[in-house]
Amino acid sequence: MPEALPAKADHVDVLIVGAGPAGLMLANWLSRFDMKTRIVDKRGTKIISGQADGLQCRTLEIFDSFGFGHRAWRESNRMLEVCFWNPDRDGVLRRSDRIADTISGISRFQLAVLHQGRIERFLLDSIKEHSDITVERGVMPTAFEFDESKAANFADYPIVVTLRTLSDEEATPAQRQQHYRNADGTQSVISDGLFQSNLVADDTDDLIRMAKDNNHAHPVETVKAKFMVGCDGAHSWVRHQLGFKLEGDSTDYIWGVLDIIPITNFPDIRYRCVVHSANFGSLMVIPRENKLVRLYIQLQVTQHAQNRDSADRSWITPEIILQSAQRIMHPHKIDYTYCDWWTAYRIGQRVGDHFSLQERVFLAGDAVHTHSPKAGQGMNVSMQDTYNLGWKIAHVVKGYSEGSILRTYQSERRRVAQDLIDFDYRLSRLFSTRSAKDTTDKGVSMEELKNTMERGSEFTSGFGVNYGTSVLVAKEGDSVEQGDGTEVAANLSQRVVSKPHLATKIGIGKCIPSFKVLNQSDARPWHLQELLRSNGRWRIIVFPGQLTMPQNMQRMQRLGDQLGSPNSFIRQYTPYSHPIDSLIEVLTVHAGPRTAVELLDLPEAFHPFDEKMGWDYWKVFVDDESHHEGHGQAYVHYGIDPNHGAAVIVRPDQYVSWVGEVDDYDDMARFFSGFMRQQVVSKSDIESRPATSSTV
Amino acid sequence: MPEALPAKADHVDVLIVGAGPAGLMLANWLSRFDMKTRIVDKRGTKIISGQADGLQCRTLEIFDSFGFGHRAWRESNRMLEVCFWNPDRDGVLRRSDRIADTISGISRFQLAVLHQGRIERFLLDSIKEHSDITVERGVMPTAFEFDESKAANFADYPIVVTLRTLSDEEATPAQRQQHYRNADGTQSVISDGLFQSNLVADDTDDLIRMAKDNNHAHPVETVKAKFMVGCDGAHSWVRHQLGFKLEGDSTDYIWGVLDIIPITNFPDIRYRCVVHSANFGSLMVIPRENKLVRLYIQLQVTQHAQNRDSADRSWITPEIILQSAQRIMHPHKIDYTYCDWWTAYRIGQRVGDHFSLQERVFLAGDAVHTHSPKAGQGMNVSMQDTYNLGWKIAHVVKGYSEGSILRTYQSERRRVAQDLIDFDYRLSRLFSTRSAKDTTDKGVSMEELKNTMERGSEFTSGFGVNYGTSVLVAKEGDSVEQGDGTEVAANLSQRVVSKPHLATKIGIGKCIPSFKVLNQSDARPWHLQELLRSNGRWRIIVFPGQLTMPQNMQRMQRLGDQLGSPNSFIRQYTPYSHPIDSLIEVLTVHAGPRTAVELLDLPEAFHPFDEKMGWDYWKVFVDDESHHEGHGQAYVHYGIDPNHGAAVIVRPDQYVSWVGEVDDYDDMARFFSGFMRQQVVSKSDIESRPATSSTV
Repeated sequence: MPEALPAKADHVDVLIVGAGPAGLMLANWLSRFDMKTRIVDKRGTKIISGQADGLQCRTLEIFDSFGFGHRAWRESNRMLEVCFWNPDRDGVLRRSDRIADTISGISRFQLAVLHQGRIERFLLDSIKEHSDITVERGVMPTAFEFDESKAANFADYPIVVTLRTLSDEEATPAQRQQHYRNADGTQSVISDGLFQSNLVADDTDDLIRMAKDNNHAHPVETVKAKFMVGCDGAHSWVRHQLGFKLEGDSTDYIWGVLDIIPITNFPDIRYRCVVHSANFGSLMVIPRENKLVRLYIQLQVTQHAQNRDSADRSWITPEIILQSAQRIMHPHKIDYTYCDWWTAYRIGQRVGDHFSLQERVFLAGDAVHTHSPKAGQGMNVSMQDTYNLGWKIAHVVKGYSEGSILRTYQSERRRVAQDLIDFDYRLSRLFSTRSAKDTTDKGVSMEELKNTMERGSEFTSGFGVNYGTSVLVAKEGDSVEQGDGTEVAANLSQRVVSKPHLATKIGIGKCIPSFKVLNQSDARPWHLQELLRSNGRWRIIVFPGQLTMPQNMQRMQRLGDQLGSPNSFIRQYTPYSHPIDSLIEVLTVHAGPRTAVELLDLPEAFHPFDEKMGWDYWKVFVDDESHHEGHGQAYVHYGIDPNHGAAVIVRPDQYVSWVGEVDDYDDMARFFSGFMRQQVVSKSDIESRPATSSTV
Repeated sequence: MPEALPAKADHVDVLIVGAGPAGLMLANWLSRFDMKTRIVDKRGTKIISGQADGLQCRTLEIFDSFGFGHRAWRESNRMLEVCFWNPDRDGVLRRSDRIADTISGISRFQLAVLHQGRIERFLLDSIKEHSDITVERGVMPTAFEFDESKAANFADYPIVVTLRTLSDEEATPAQRQQHYRNADGTQSVISDGLFQSNLVADDTDDLIRMAKDNNHAHPVETVKAKFMVGCDGAHSWVRHQLGFKLEGDSTDYIWGVLDIIPITNFPDIRYRCVVHSANFGSLMVIPRENKLVRLYIQLQVTQHAQNRDSADRSWITPEIILQSAQRIMHPHKIDYTYCDWWTAYRIGQRVGDHFSLQERVFLAGDAVHTHSPKAGQGMNVSMQDTYNLGWKIAHVVKGYSEGSILRTYQSERRRVAQDLIDFDYRLSRLFSTRSAKDTTDKGVSMEELKNTMERGSEFTSGFGVNYGTSVLVAKEGDSVEQGDGTEVAANLSQRVVSKPHLATKIGIGKCIPSFKVLNQSDARPWHLQELLRSNGRWRIIVFPGQLTMPQNMQRMQRLGDQLGSPNSFIRQYTPYSHPIDSLIEVLTVHAGPRTAVELLDLPEAFHPFDEKMGWDYWKVFVDDESHHEGHGQAYVHYGIDPNHGAAVIVRPDQYVSWVGEVDDYDDMARFFSGFMRQQVVSKSDIESRPATSSTV
């Protein structure tokens, strides 16, 4: 694409296109590594209301691993129970059932709701705290070149992108503003979300055209990048450049969304509700923060049949949506004075055919999966895409890992997207079809809907994700079958397989569950996941069992000797100038009792010494009764025998790679040898390096 | 005191002198009321290290009621266990015992440690969020006049104070800086805390003298105030102006304090420890945030006898203090490279003879009580002084309450100070005396120390406070005896006495304990105290028992009719323009089950309706099993019969005023009539006022 000569040029490690949740999560990850990162977004401002709002437990855990989970948890509204309403035999709407909204014990968090603007705020604050990365708003890419000959060398820059800064008018979406008539006759202005809805053509092409006309007024620059990630939404510019496709279908179901402070006598308005009316479609109630309630309301398109063939959306107004809600909720009244936001969308499910171009350009979030919003998954899965990708890119850029780990991104995340789409298809059909009058009726039975939701709870909490075997996940089976079809297995000589019977309740390829353990040195309880901060470290978590049993202490001694030796794989893979725990951190959780063990009796590898800071008191923990917060029963919950123990390797994103014997140093070493790079240091370097740790 | 003509004059509701924890807590309270408040401090900068650090559970609860408890809780180090070390029969130091540091179940928080500078930061942020009050630093009062003839009229300004802005040099304390020799031979600079220690003469007089010399250079102004509060420390200028005295004694015991990152093989360095050596005195270990440990170390003054008679403190250095610690901890090693702060102090216990001048000028914090720091009480009791005082001043200034409530400040807080001093005296003696060799020895027995600490746990957690009967606390007994000697009883005709048997585990005059209850409208668990935000509201908490019992529902109906009537005392005391729940809020906790009750079946007084916001879903709660956080068992823990119920009146500072029958509207009305002021409104105002609520 010929362009005017660029005004300046820049070289970056990673260029992120799009500053929604997926793009910001990626920038947030990369802010933890000292890397040259840029992130651009064509919109001139951050969103302040509406959009996505559902937060999985797993997403809250990820936020917590970055240090801002508490902000989301405090501000959000919790969703604890789902109430089902459907017509009784006389056709009158009744509460037919209640179920818990989150599986008991699955997480220290529960499903919650908070609008996307706050999530983006937390991510922005976190990025700012850890780096000088700033979002460049009103900036969009207009041309893309890829030099395949440079793709194999990860020190090289195969990507060239032209960026253009837009004018203020260009960067402001053409949002419809309308005067809405309140019940008391006054008027107020409500912004709609249709400009981002899938009912409206995206305005990217218009923006590019406008920007070209402005060539002289606004700066243009060329950026050369090692990696580029398109987090630029359903109408992704990056995806179009790559020529990749979304595969799937749309339905004819149209749903409206209202964010209102409800004035109603419906008794369950602060519970999540699924309401099926006899004849007017269905509706979902999502109670939100700040007294708001979001209603997802099925619109009776047949009433507006004259418009169906065209793209005309003018018939969709807040009043039309409200009237649908009123019909569905009858005989209960519902009205509002304050409307915070509204939109409408057509249900559809689509997944990208490819997630990456030669592991140099990646797509994430809505750019590669679109679906209905009602399961509250979209923002979560999008952020989890880049949470999966971020550390892999960073470890390759930093030279810690081989580039082969990058192939696992598509293998792992495209499979998740496919599973999501399947789930959403089933759920959407159940929501959009009228409820059955009796067992002979072909409408949806409430029992089927309830069962689907209950079975889907692990999935909607974010814990259904189970990454297949690969260079990063040491388990039985075939990596092509367990993923999306991409080959990501380790070389045979380096392949390691876990011994899952040693920790029967830890799923290899799944996120490590979290239970409370106590710090050996001060008896403070921590959720295990709180120890697994997202700072790029791999962890070897040693569960040595009861250390009062001599054979268990002997195995610890053996492992400690090997890990602490100057030739250990940890030392080989950790850059000379970095603390010994900065790439692979060793944590211990023994089976207690706490008071029977003294920290300093364990080998130094488990609590490194530093000349200026003394011993590290934040590496050894115990599964024991706490003074004020009960007993975490971690060994029971992980299915580990306290007489025997186990060791677990956990990825920097908290997914489990390997389970094996406490003292199986060789398998640990073999696992890491499949993708880690030996750091080049002289012999004298190794001998003189102090065993320092960097915990704060 | 003759002065140059003031450059300008100002009228304020409250002038706060001193911006330490006590002064900032007061400003923070007042920031919740729209009042004219100024706060001045002679120091030019906020402290950034050292000073006080202990946080009672009760203090964390108060922080949480202002919305920043989580900040302190996240940053602080928890103290969960105390280890006792003393010589064994052979004179070798051994761990002799462990006890929990906080009584189980007493609070949702535990004892914690975080340095004063962070606490002040949280208070400053909170003040800024809620008001435009800013601390005027480098400003000190230099003259004070009090017009007694104006003291009886609370709309008048009896106080006149001259304020002077200091130069930068004047506002910087003469802090000693010294080069300290590290173990490796390098040098570093450590600031000491002696300038604020009681071993140094305060520099206030010097500052005043210097300021006078600077008359022309720096602005002077006159402030007229309704109230003034002296939070200006042990050498309080305000106290001197009033001619009040601190009563009590100093001892000869001198203790040093080191904040260091320890390099040690002492195994319990991250537990709180009390270490008694055989011959070299005792030491306390306080593990802190950011890897720091504070050591309180008894200094062997006799070794420096040549200096004892003079005020010479030059012999006290970090090295002297460290050497004492090393002797005490022998045979364990202790050393450090990094020292964050150090100081030394002489143990003494003193209490002010008066806490107020005609309820117009008050003293709080170190200005009226000084004691040793080792029980971790100082900062807590100081902030709790002004937490007690703030809402009382605000309610009088706002015209909600009679001035009579202000007398309870001295009655309640001077008694607390006396109790604190008694406790500290006993504890200090036990710490400073050598441990007994056997039962015939007159040293301190470890058993006695451990018992004193265990018995003191309720006190040191902050829950020992039990305010006596008064116009604000409706219980049996004599107000003079139960307080500090001040007469604060209600008039006989308005005196109400609680029925404690209805809630056997709620102490009248004590802080209401907190247990989890569920919101009726969304099943979310809340700690009861989380519902009692510090926003100036009184609460009537109705525990109606099981509402499935018809008689209990009938009593709720009766109470609801009376509270909701246009003539109810709530309406009489609430200013016309304010929401109905803004001064006295009605909360309900029924005994369950949750699913057997519908919110809208309860009278409107328990969930007020607003035309724009709909029903209030945040007033009715239930004592029932939660989905993920267990069963709070609130009725069991409060000692309330679920077949019968009780009602509780709670002060704006979470202390319990009254316990009575659910439907005892008359006693509730009589209680409030003892000090509340009827708001002047027309009859038509009352009839037309909507029943709005203001919960957010």
